[in-house]
Order: sequence, then structure tokens, then C-alpha cells
Amino acid sequence: MILRIAMIGFGNVGQEFARLLLAKRDWLLRTKGLDAEVLAIATKTKGSLISKRALDLDKCLRLIKEDGSLSAYGPETTTLSPKQIIGECDADLMIELSPLNIKTGQPAIDHIKAALESGMDVITANKGPIAFAYSDLIRLARSKGVHFRFEGTVMDGTPVFNLVEKTLPGCEILGLSGILNSTSNFVLAEMASGKSMEDAIKIAQKRGFAEADPSLDIEGWDAAAKITALANVMMDARANPKLVDRQGIGGVSQLDIEKAARQRKKVKLIASAVRTGDCVKLSVKPEIIGTDDPFWSVDGTSSALTIKTDLMGDITIVERDHLVTQTAYAVFSDLLLVLESIRSGTIR
Amino acid sequence: MILRIAMIGFGNVGQEFARLLLAKRDWLLRTKGLDAEVLAIATKTKGSLISKRALDLDKCLRLIKEDGSLSAYGPETTTLSPKQIIGECDADLMIELSPLNIKTGQPAIDHIKAALESGMDVITANKGPIAFAYSDLIRLARSKGVHFRFEGTVMDGTPVFNLVEKTLPGCEILGLSGILNSTSNFVLAEMASGKSMEDAIKIAQKRGFAEADPSLDIEGWDAAAKITALANVMMDARANPKLVDRQGIGGVSQLDIEKAARQRKKVKLIASAVRTGDCVKLSVKPEIIGTDDPFWSVDGTSSALTIKTDLMGDITIVERDHLVTQTAYAVFSDLLLVLESIRSGTIR
Repeated sequence: MILRIAMIGFGNVGQEFARLLLAKRDWLLRTKGLDAEVLAIATKTKGSLISKRALDLDKCLRLIKEDGSLSAYGPETTTLSPKQIIGECDADLMIELSPLNIKTGQPAIDHIKAALESGMDVITANKGPIAFAYSDLIRLARSKGVHFRFEGTVMDGTPVFNLVEKTLPGCEILGLSGILNSTSNFVLAEMASGKSMEDAIKIAQKRGFAEADPSLDIEGWDAAAKITALANVMMDARANPKLVDRQGIGGVSQLDIEKAARQRKKVKLIASAVRTGDCVKLSVKPEIIGTDDPFWSVDGTSSALTIKTDLMGDITIVERDHLVTQTAYAVFSDLLLVLESIRSGTIR
Repeated sequence: MILRIAMIGFGNVGQEFARLLLAKRDWLLRTKGLDAEVLAIATKTKGSLISKRALDLDKCLRLIKEDGSLSAYGPETTTLSPKQIIGECDADLMIELSPLNIKTGQPAIDHIKAALESGMDVITANKGPIAFAYSDLIRLARSKGVHFRFEGTVMDGTPVFNLVEKTLPGCEILGLSGILNSTSNFVLAEMASGKSMEDAIKIAQKRGFAEADPSLDIEGWDAAAKITALANVMMDARANPKLVDRQGIGGVSQLDIEKAARQRKKVKLIASAVRTGDCVKLSVKPEIIGTDDPFWSVDGTSSALTIKTDLMGDITIVERDHLVTQTAYAVFSDLLLVLESIRSGTIR
């Protein structure tokens, strides 16, 4: 079986996914009988490609590394926009990894809508669409009979959406709480070891996981988008990040952290979703936790989610030390789940 | 669709599963189109039933509660052995929940073999068969084209086997480590708060999770069986619990725990599986852990497992405070996965 892919976005995660696809090409063919071909790559600033035949991913990765651009690839180079590329390419599946505006979810939402409308399966690691437009997008996917998967949007490749969908059948999700933003969690831990917030942010930027403008992390927007995405999918919250009672770590002082430490406590940025009647209440705020809290040892760039269920009690899943390879794996694992579902003739 | 079930064993987990089946009967019919009927219940000391038509589970539960026995049920009462019941009843699926000999895996292994031979799907929450005979049993199930599921054997209903099978496709499991025995973990935590081992065991017995003879827990047999089961399934270890380098908490003194506490450390019983070349090395032993360990806050009757993977790094999953309802849920979730697989025409 050949699965033809269009990639929208070719940044760190996209490139890492391409490397993973190359590394697993033989394994996919041998164990799954799958030949995954990339027919198009669309980027905003690094050039775009569209082709009737499989693109040479090795060449794409080399060009990006050497030139910072795909423009010298050959006649496959195009000036079409991502939406035009989605419309014109012959792909069966679109992978959305474009840069995100976390306050609107665009342009990823439009890309996904266009792909679903064209009858493509869609995989994204972009949290915006799930936080802002999940119910519309899943309804559209279902009406078209195609797959829409998004494991990489929260906690990278650590299974959270797939955990609930695939391994907790029949469970109702009563509530969620988590440490979902690596930068905030890292900064709080560094502050606890005596550094200033400014210095901690600089270290996070140097290590490559905090943005040049860290305000979306520090003000809690990233965590808000993630808890909204989780609650939309798992609790039918129909919310968006602007509805989250949001307080970032900007107001946490060295003094607050020292005071907590003296009582053997830590300050953590906790995102949570609680069902109250027909509503789901979402919040992001700094909280003081003790040594018996499941999140106590979730430090550095680790993240964690506790899922409260009716039949299975509380389950906590923890990701140790985020790596970009893990988000690429999320896309890869979704690809395998789409493949399995196509094979068995079922649709999510 | 009607799924006809034979239950071997009707202790705490079996009864709780029957209650869950009753509570979810309407939901199963409405959302899954499934009518699950129990045609036989076999017990060692509480009587057995076999019938051509669905047994009245309410009546079974009432009889067990009032008489401690199923004998007064009616003409469905039988003196057939569990194996004879498996051979003679018309069930499609056998649920194995009989009392376990943790040093042999019997009689559960024989029950499961008999059911698989007869072409039944099998679900068990009995760790013995997975620890002692997994490779034989899964080979038999595959040759017969039937399902064999066992989520409830380790960490109750917390998805561990299903987590790896369903949500980590393509990942190789490089190693495992976990807190898998509730009694040992509880006793160590109570000792840290000043109690003697004897008193801590008595409390655990009073609360109902430690056996009258706690030696299998304290000597590490239970944890050894669980890490073997995990490694057999996830790492193709082909081991059995007797091959585990096993050291229980019997030799841990109050002094050891106090010494650790003075250094802000804890003593935990850690079970682990490590691949070394072609072998998988299994061990169970008390270890000293620090505040940054993912298992630091896994106290009381909670349990946890860290799964080391090639593509997704380390994932830790934690179950808070074990309940018997969770093991019953494991059986229920496996039932739903079998149903889904029958529907889609795929076999594990």
C-alpha cells in the first residue's frame, strides 16, 4: 500500500519526522507493507515543493541544512500557497506542522479544513486547531469519513489522547490536571535553585525549548491552549484558550519560591479542567504542592497529566525530558494508527 | 451481537466485574450493540453454574452475599470441574479469575489452554499465566485465531500492556522499572512514619489488600511475577518468576529507612527489566531513591511503571490508590477491545 503525504510546515518537528520516516522506511515496508511517500512540502519562508512522484527527503533535509531553503530542489519548486498546494497535490494524508498563532489557531485551522474538505486524512502536532476549532474539525472529518489525529499537540509523543481513546474504553473523564508547559516548569525549578527568572529564561532559550519571545509560555498561554485541547477532546468542553482562567508564572517571585521551599513545598504551574454541572471550568495558575503530590518530581522539561476517570480512578502519565524527536514520533504513531484503521475499515 | 461468557473464578474481582456488567448493560447495548451474557460461573469452593441461557447475575451476587455460595441457584448448579465447564459450555469468551498459585501459575494456565483450544477468546486478570507461560499461550491463541488479553494482571486496570500495544506502535521497549507490589510499598511508607514492619503488615491486612499470609508480597514474589509478565509481553523475555534476581523487603530494617530519611531519601521495592545483549535481566530489590526520582511520590497503595523506549524516551504511568473496581475495569476494557477487534476483523 502506498500512502501519499503532503507536509505543511518543515521546521524542527517536520524535519525530524522526515528523518524518522527515512530511518523507518524499510521497517514500514517489511512489517506494515506501507510505502509512505511525501509528494509536497509547504513552508512559509523556506520554499515549497509539489510533485507527482515521491520527493527525495534526504535531499530536502540536506538543502535545508546547507541553504536554509528548499528553493534549489529542482522543477518541483513552487510558489503556490499552502492552501493551493493542499488543493492541487495528490496526497492521501496531510501533516500539519506550520508555525502557530496561539491566540487564533491560524493558519493551521484553515489548512486542516482544506485538507479534510478534499477528503484527506489529517495528522497535526499543532495545538491551536484542537484548542480553537476541535468540534468543527472533528465533525467535518467524520462527515467526510476521514481520519483526524493530533497526539503530538500536548506532551509531545507521550500518549494522552490515544491513551484515553484506545486504552480507557467506556471510561468517562471527570477531570484533568497537568504540568503542560516545559518552559514555565523549567524556570520555576531553576528559580528554586536560586536563579532569577530572567536568567532561567535565558538558559531555557539557550537550550532551545523557550521561544525568543517567551511571553506565551510565561503568561500561561501555551498551557491554556493545551488544557483546552485536552478538555475539548476528552470532556467535550467546547472551549477555547481565551475562556481559560489564566495566570502565568510572571507574578511568582523568588520570595514565593523560597517560602515554599522552607516548608518543603514547590511552586508549579498547574493547568486543570473540572466539570461543574454542564460546564467544564478551565484554569492555569501557579499552585503550591507538597512532597506527596504526583507532580512533585516532575521537574525540568518533564511534563505530566493526571486523568480522573469514573471507572479507573486517577491515572498519571509522565514524560521525562522533552525532545523534538518525541513530537516527531507522535506524528509517526498517528500515521501508524491511521494505517491500522484504514486496514480494518474503521474510522475514529 | 451476543457475546456469551464463561467466568472461571468468582471472588472479589469476579463479583465486581459482574456488578460492572450489570451497571453497564444498557450502555453496552445502546452504544456498542452488545449483549454480554454469562452462561457459566465456576468456583472452587462456592459452587458452580452452567446454563444454555444467560445466568441472572443479580441473583448470583445476592446468593454469594447471603449464603457465601451459588449452590441454591437452581438446576443450573453443577459439580463439573472448571475444565469440564469450559469444555461443555457454549461460551464465546472465557474470563479467568481463579485463585492463583504464584509459584506455578496453575490452575489458571490449564484453564486458559483449555479455553483457547476450544476456540474461545480469553481475558484474564491472573498474572501467573503471563509470567509462566506467555509465549505458549499467545502462540496457541494466534494459531486458533482468537483473542488473549490480560490488562488486569499488572497495575490493575491502569493501561500498561494496552498502552504499549495500542499507543506506542513502532516503539521498541528497551527497559522497564516499577513499583508493582502495593503491600510492600505501603509497608515501607508506614515504616518511614515510624511503625514496625509487623504493625504495618497488620494494617495492610485490615484494609484488605495484604493476604493472610503476606510472605509472597514481602519476599518479592508478587513483584517478580509482575515484572516477568511485563517483560515477557513487552520485551519477549521468555522468562519466569523463578529466574528473577529477587530480594523482598523482609531484610529492610527501621534503621535503614531512618538513615535514608535523614538524607531526604526513601526505600522503595523496585522491579526492573534490562536488556543486555540477547537476554533480559529481571530483578526485584529494595532501592534508595531521591526526591527527583519519578517514584518519589508513589506512596501507599499506588503503583507505577516507567517504560523506556527507543523513539519516545521514558514514559511513567502511575496508578493512584488501588481499588478492586479497577481490576474489574481492566477485564471490562479488555472485553471492549475484543469486541472492537471482532468487529474490525483484526486479531491481536
